[in-house]
Amino acid sequence: MTRTVIRGGLVITAAEELAADVLIEGEQVVALASSGSSVAEGWTAEHVIDATGQYVIPGGVDAHTHMELPFGGTSASDTFETGTRAAAWGGTTTIVDFAVQSVGGTLREGLDAWHAKAEGNCAIDYAFHMILGDVTEGSLKEMDLLVGEGVTSFKLFMAYPGVFYSDDGKILRAMQRGADNGGLIMMHAENGIAIDVLVEQALAAGKTDPRYHGEVRHELLEAEATHRAIKLAQVAGAPLYVVHVSAASAVAELAAARRQGLNVFGETCPQYLFLSTDNLAEPGFEGAKYVCSTPLRPKEHQAELWKGLRTNDLQVVSTDHCPFCFVGQKELGRGDFSKIPNGLPGVENRMDLLHQAVVDGHISRRRWIEIACATPARMFGLYPRKGTIAPGADADIVVYDPAAVQTVSAATHHMNVDYSAYEGRQLTGKARTVLSRGTVVVDGDRYLGRAGHGRFQPRATCQYLV
Amino acid sequence: MTRTVIRGGLVITAAEELAADVLIEGEQVVALASSGSSVAEGWTAEHVIDATGQYVIPGGVDAHTHMELPFGGTSASDTFETGTRAAAWGGTTTIVDFAVQSVGGTLREGLDAWHAKAEGNCAIDYAFHMILGDVTEGSLKEMDLLVGEGVTSFKLFMAYPGVFYSDDGKILRAMQRGADNGGLIMMHAENGIAIDVLVEQALAAGKTDPRYHGEVRHELLEAEATHRAIKLAQVAGAPLYVVHVSAASAVAELAAARRQGLNVFGETCPQYLFLSTDNLAEPGFEGAKYVCSTPLRPKEHQAELWKGLRTNDLQVVSTDHCPFCFVGQKELGRGDFSKIPNGLPGVENRMDLLHQAVVDGHISRRRWIEIACATPARMFGLYPRKGTIAPGADADIVVYDPAAVQTVSAATHHMNVDYSAYEGRQLTGKARTVLSRGTVVVDGDRYLGRAGHGRFQPRATCQYLV
Amino acid sequence: MTRTVIRGGLVITAAEELAADVLIEGEQVVALASSGSSVAEGWTAEHVIDATGQYVIPGGVDAHTHMELPFGGTSASDTFETGTRAAAWGGTTTIVDFAVQSVGGTLREGLDAWHAKAEGNCAIDYAFHMILGDVTEGSLKEMDLLVGEGVTSFKLFMAYPGVFYSDDGKILRAMQRGADNGGLIMMHAENGIAIDVLVEQALAAGKTDPRYHGEVRHELLEAEATHRAIKLAQVAGAPLYVVHVSAASAVAELAAARRQGLNVFGETCPQYLFLSTDNLAEPGFEGAKYVCSTPLRPKEHQAELWKGLRTNDLQVVSTDHCPFCFVGQKELGRGDFSKIPNGLPGVENRMDLLHQAVVDGHISRRRWIEIACATPARMFGLYPRKGTIAPGADADIVVYDPAAVQTVSAATHHMNVDYSAYEGRQLTGKARTVLSRGTVVVDGDRYLGRAGHGRFQPRATCQYLV
Amino acid sequence: MTRTVIRGGLVITAAEELAADVLIEGEQVVALASSGSSVAEGWTAEHVIDATGQYVIPGGVDAHTHMELPFGGTSASDTFETGTRAAAWGGTTTIVDFAVQSVGGTLREGLDAWHAKAEGNCAIDYAFHMILGDVTEGSLKEMDLLVGEGVTSFKLFMAYPGVFYSDDGKILRAMQRGADNGGLIMMHAENGIAIDVLVEQALAAGKTDPRYHGEVRHELLEAEATHRAIKLAQVAGAPLYVVHVSAASAVAELAAARRQGLNVFGETCPQYLFLSTDNLAEPGFEGAKYVCSTPLRPKEHQAELWKGLRTNDLQVVSTDHCPFCFVGQKELGRGDFSKIPNGLPGVENRMDLLHQAVVDGHISRRRWIEIACATPARMFGLYPRKGTIAPGADADIVVYDPAAVQTVSAATHHMNVDYSAYEGRQLTGKARTVLSRGTVVVDGDRYLGRAGHGRFQPRATCQYLV
Repeated sequence: MTRTVIRGGLVITAAEELAADVLIEGEQVVALASSGSSVAEGWTAEHVIDATGQYVIPGGVDAHTHMELPFGGTSASDTFETGTRAAAWGGTTTIVDFAVQSVGGTLREGLDAWHAKAEGNCAIDYAFHMILGDVTEGSLKEMDLLVGEGVTSFKLFMAYPGVFYSDDGKILRAMQRGADNGGLIMMHAENGIAIDVLVEQALAAGKTDPRYHGEVRHELLEAEATHRAIKLAQVAGAPLYVVHVSAASAVAELAAARRQGLNVFGETCPQYLFLSTDNLAEPGFEGAKYVCSTPLRPKEHQAELWKGLRTNDLQVVSTDHCPFCFVGQKELGRGDFSKIPNGLPGVENRMDLLHQAVVDGHISRRRWIEIACATPARMFGLYPRKGTIAPGADADIVVYDPAAVQTVSAATHHMNVDYSAYEGRQLTGKARTVLSRGTVVVDGDRYLGRAGHGRFQPRATCQYLV
Repeated sequence: MTRTVIRGGLVITAAEELAADVLIEGEQVVALASSGSSVAEGWTAEHVIDATGQYVIPGGVDAHTHMELPFGGTSASDTFETGTRAAAWGGTTTIVDFAVQSVGGTLREGLDAWHAKAEGNCAIDYAFHMILGDVTEGSLKEMDLLVGEGVTSFKLFMAYPGVFYSDDGKILRAMQRGADNGGLIMMHAENGIAIDVLVEQALAAGKTDPRYHGEVRHELLEAEATHRAIKLAQVAGAPLYVVHVSAASAVAELAAARRQGLNVFGETCPQYLFLSTDNLAEPGFEGAKYVCSTPLRPKEHQAELWKGLRTNDLQVVSTDHCPFCFVGQKELGRGDFSKIPNGLPGVENRMDLLHQAVVDGHISRRRWIEIACATPARMFGLYPRKGTIAPGADADIVVYDPAAVQTVSAATHHMNVDYSAYEGRQLTGKARTVLSRGTVVVDGDRYLGRAGHGRFQPRATCQYLV
Repeated sequence: MTRTVIRGGLVITAAEELAADVLIEGEQVVALASSGSSVAEGWTAEHVIDATGQYVIPGGVDAHTHMELPFGGTSASDTFETGTRAAAWGGTTTIVDFAVQSVGGTLREGLDAWHAKAEGNCAIDYAFHMILGDVTEGSLKEMDLLVGEGVTSFKLFMAYPGVFYSDDGKILRAMQRGADNGGLIMMHAENGIAIDVLVEQALAAGKTDPRYHGEVRHELLEAEATHRAIKLAQVAGAPLYVVHVSAASAVAELAAARRQGLNVFGETCPQYLFLSTDNLAEPGFEGAKYVCSTPLRPKEHQAELWKGLRTNDLQVVSTDHCPFCFVGQKELGRGDFSKIPNGLPGVENRMDLLHQAVVDGHISRRRWIEIACATPARMFGLYPRKGTIAPGADADIVVYDPAAVQTVSAATHHMNVDYSAYEGRQLTGKARTVLSRGTVVVDGDRYLGRAGHGRFQPRATCQYLV
Repeated sequence: MTRTVIRGGLVITAAEELAADVLIEGEQVVALASSGSSVAEGWTAEHVIDATGQYVIPGGVDAHTHMELPFGGTSASDTFETGTRAAAWGGTTTIVDFAVQSVGGTLREGLDAWHAKAEGNCAIDYAFHMILGDVTEGSLKEMDLLVGEGVTSFKLFMAYPGVFYSDDGKILRAMQRGADNGGLIMMHAENGIAIDVLVEQALAAGKTDPRYHGEVRHELLEAEATHRAIKLAQVAGAPLYVVHVSAASAVAELAAARRQGLNVFGETCPQYLFLSTDNLAEPGFEGAKYVCSTPLRPKEHQAELWKGLRTNDLQVVSTDHCPFCFVGQKELGRGDFSKIPNGLPGVENRMDLLHQAVVDGHISRRRWIEIACATPARMFGLYPRKGTIAPGADADIVVYDPAAVQTVSAATHHMNVDYSAYEGRQLTGKARTVLSRGTVVVDGDRYLGRAGHGRFQPRATCQYLV
């Protein structure tokens, strides 16, 4: 077995900061020892990575991506190949993508289709959540099978009537099933039925610009749906994970539920932490670049999201990576914001944006690793393989340069999309060397990985339930 | 004009307690003067009612009745004739009943049908709310017309899918319209979509007894719907009146909204204050007598409802009077609780049950009149004609004997239903003399009224909005 | 007995708005009758007041004044004579002033001293609260006697260590006594012990200007004391009335307690509704004019106070009238804000400022009367003599011109103080004719009253307890 | 350097559960490696501890003990020698005890006295908090010096007037100083001024039994003081650590503050989690065994404390170990509960009681280590030396047998006190081998430690501040 040792860095996990060397054998971490100790010094290895002055952190776990997702008559512009490669560049070594059950179709068909898209194409490890597009007696039964196959989380939508939408009865049934089989229900919490009325009224009133996307998807309709999902989960006796929380009032609903001791969890995304309705209102059609759902909110919500991350009322930061090119894709919605494909690119930027938050004082270093690596791994049953650096864990490791300065740009990023949501933003910190299961896939400005290195990761059930 | 003077009683309104004589000319109160003053003594009148030792209170305003309502394949057993006569016996001199728009029908058709049922048959004055059974472009426009005709409140249902149910989009549209035309939205707040899943599961599990009616209509699903209605109203910029609140957690939602300064109002009913799931669980099929929706709750909710009435988080007590005979009607649900017609008799008992609450120390005398007379009148635009005793008000007056002791029984009540929900309960206090627009309609144990005395009351819009 | 009739106005009470004539015999209202009715037309009277186009409202009840109060080495500049005359000009017909127990002295001594100051000097009726300056076994026993004499409320201070301050043990004892004898505890809720530290630190740091008065009396230290007073009252089983609430966070504490069903009440004052820290920061030494405790708060608190008045989390608006001339009195604090006598003039302005709030849409007309007349009367046991217009009530009545426009100014006001806190402010509405117990004391721009007309009003205990 | 390897156990830290061998060199952990790996197998060591089937956990950190504390005319019965030895038996390898500044004395004198008591006598490592018994200009300055010496936390009392009590001004000053120098303020949060009134009243009413200790120290007076301490800390801009939280309503105050993002922390103790007022009410004088302050609460509070530990509204479980023998010490309070010395023994039982909570499903294994080891170490600046098992940490390690069954009894415990608060309670789990800085001090039923092995641990400042 190949041995690699990473020497002299500061190992940072969700819990510890250690001056330690890391010994890798094959695909796994096998030992940690104090840097400079005779034990560490005694280690011999084919590969020695010098991490002096660097952080040694677990590879990022992005629990929310949509590679190649068909949406609104087009498809997300990153394939599993391009998207996972970009993820690796950004220090993320595991993604959990969403397989989709179509209306009238089975979970099996959907899952098989997504396996086919991903298999052999990924630069890093991947796993799947399943979107329940059609809750029926049949699909409820299939949930049990999928849990057995390591697809242990199921997403439902309170938005998008006629597409992914499930009514409260279907939601309740799926939650009850999840309470039995251990599957975790993930919720897109927006009252889509009400929103569609506001969309129709806005368009009828000639309000067609991108910024109206933010107005019609009213903050209160996110908070409402969040509250409703919590109550349905309570009736079902099931845990709940709310995706892409953007509204301060939705955070308040989560916080209230958590204070009651309920197993309720919340995810937010970098776009909600760093962007705002100011971007949606950029002149011309520029705002279309920032159209996603839940939408960006007014700037003052950001402080509440950061606070939620500090108080642990929010536990995870994922990207909801779902890129559409401005030219040809976002443009589908010129003259009708409701036709703009929903989604932003970000899988490559997440780790760096959150490190910037460390630099800016929003969160501590350990909390950075917790929300970006450890908790997503635990939440979705990937722990202890993923999300930490410890004997027995997969050697998904990033040697991170905390002092490197970079300027984000579509001109230099690796995602297959013609714009960056963070164009021109200067960030401090950058992944220098990225290992996926012991293999160096990125080293400085060289990409050393390959499509197909990444493997499907069957997952255990959520490890956060109490 | 006929003159009547009521002498020597204690006049109690929502605001005052006065030792005053009341002078009536024709159908209206024209003056109040201190009892024993030369002014009062100087009044001459054809009719003098001695109220020494009695309360002189405004006639009750019951803002929630369902006479002759078709429901579940049968009809409420009280006609407008029998029901309003019973109301008069119980000291209630105005009802606001619900006209029903059927699916596919117009508001006009529904309202005309209800006018036809009521006209010429009522012992006391009456008005109508309109149930919006089918929110369409057409019915939204009709709302404006009805407001102009004095039908200024519109009820929607979050329960009863396939019958009265409106989805959140329809609710939002109706609320927006109400925000424009002044119509007040009244909400049956239960998540009927989720409840129907639980009903189906309960029946499938052989849980068919009446008590399961209480279990499947889960408290949290009332609280959830209440919260949702509030948020939709907030988005619409509309006020909201939640009918028949029974769950402590729903009261908490109202209280939180009111603390924010929202125009949100709540009604509860005597059955929730005096009865509980213990009644639903009575042996045999007895529990069917207590089947209504929202359902009766465990006893500990009662204290929270009383508290809500004291803190003004609840403002109105109505009856939701909707009687079905045990024999032949409630019995339709033997072996399947979901087939039991929903509703309880109560229009005759409300004023006395609430006076008992005064005796028991739950509320003050003035608060009794406020929640039973003054606030319902103001809430639904009947003030100052109804709900108070003051110069210019209709002479709807009850001389109330606070010391009379009665035992409630189907054997003696005047409602057209074969059981009493309060059978055998001893109450202190009873209406002695009841005047409707200056005419004595009940005097001791004699009924002096007539079908057709009662007149339709066009209403102004809600007088509580700030 | 002299008879007066007020014809053709709109009678407004806390509960009703009536087109009615009011008949007064001697000192009391004896009857109301519909304007234009034969009954009303039949009334003969020595005095007929034409109120066409005017409001006919109860005289104001100002439950918080400090005439002639010795404070900080000087005394409030209004005597009972000048202060009550100014009150009358402003449409207020009853004040409740504070007698003071000195440290080492008895309640009896304090009360006698205040009786001596007031007797024979007042233009309008007056009553007393008692400041408990020294809680001892003796003064606790005296509380019972004072309740018997109609002094039924007792003020304690959590501020002003070494002057009026009582520690939590004394407060608890006084509350326990009040729980027994019906005396209502009124609380100045600021953490004076902590504030004195901040005062000392501010002065040591050279922060001596008036605006630092607002900084050191930190909002959180008002909220804290409010919370503490509520908890102590809960332990004692006693009701609580918090005076001069100015901080939004203190309102939140009251609201939370009230939602629990506790007998907790809150008063605010016009200065907190209309003025702010902007005034305290006026250039030169002008800010001294606005020094009072609790202090003025930043402008954004005003909206929360208005909301509290609408939601009934605040129930009373009093003035805390305690005027000190700018020249010679406020000036004592030049170079040391802590030496500025605390207090503002306002007894003459309250009714008009609150009517302006009606014009501005903050409150309704009836709520105006409720917070300024009816509730203070009920709260402090003056009802039904004071605070309403009804048969049997004292004929304390104001014919109020809602359309009159006035400009507030020290040049024209009647208070004995050399500045106005509202100088130059234009208000719509003005008292035109003021009656105190049936006697016209102000008519247009003529003062017809006399010192000594006003009589001491023994009070019953608080009428709001449930 | 001596090498020790612990083989084959399940290493549990606050963050990880690993099948790993632990290599110790001298006093520190130097490496972890996967059990069975060639790296681990290659380790040679003088001492090999077989941990197969056992947990390998960090030694417990008890952040709240009172060895030899003088209190109420007597002294806590455990010396540093007997108390730390008992701690070691129970798997605790670090205590933080409280040095006391007496009124009129300096911090230096107090700290020196406590150093003298502890030095050379301790079986395990120890550190000190400082009780600020007399906040003066002098002692405030001394705080800075103590922080420099590694005494970085300062306890204040809102209870015990005349003994340890500080008023709100002194508290505010100490908090301000802590905000500057990094010292963490620890608060005994009970309103002692009000409690003393209730004590006096209870004794005067003949209520002298131990159970009245629980009644007079009213839950609301703990919640009140907790709220007040939070507000004062907010004004000072300082963090706050509330000791021995026992009341559900106090947890609610902490939770509300934390939700606001404040640096507010809470500690509870095993006695509040496992005992209740039922114990205080045991017949005869038995209740005296359970007299401590804050007092035991009614049983229903326990669920809220467990919930607080799960939701992280409470972060630490310490013992407040302060034993007094029943005979001769607790008996001082016969006939007067207020004379019973306040305190319970527990330093030996904490780790096992909390493991029982794991067995009972209240908390997870990792949370057990977090609340008992890792968080107290971080909170009080002992991390990463203490509280975890990682390269570079002190080798304070317990090999814990999760299946061992023990029965708690004074007959077998090692604390110097004649009763056990948990007498007869059967617990699952027991420390088998205990290492302090690499030295085995307990092995099975043999004590191998020695007085003087334990060393004073200077501490950094709190590591939880954000």
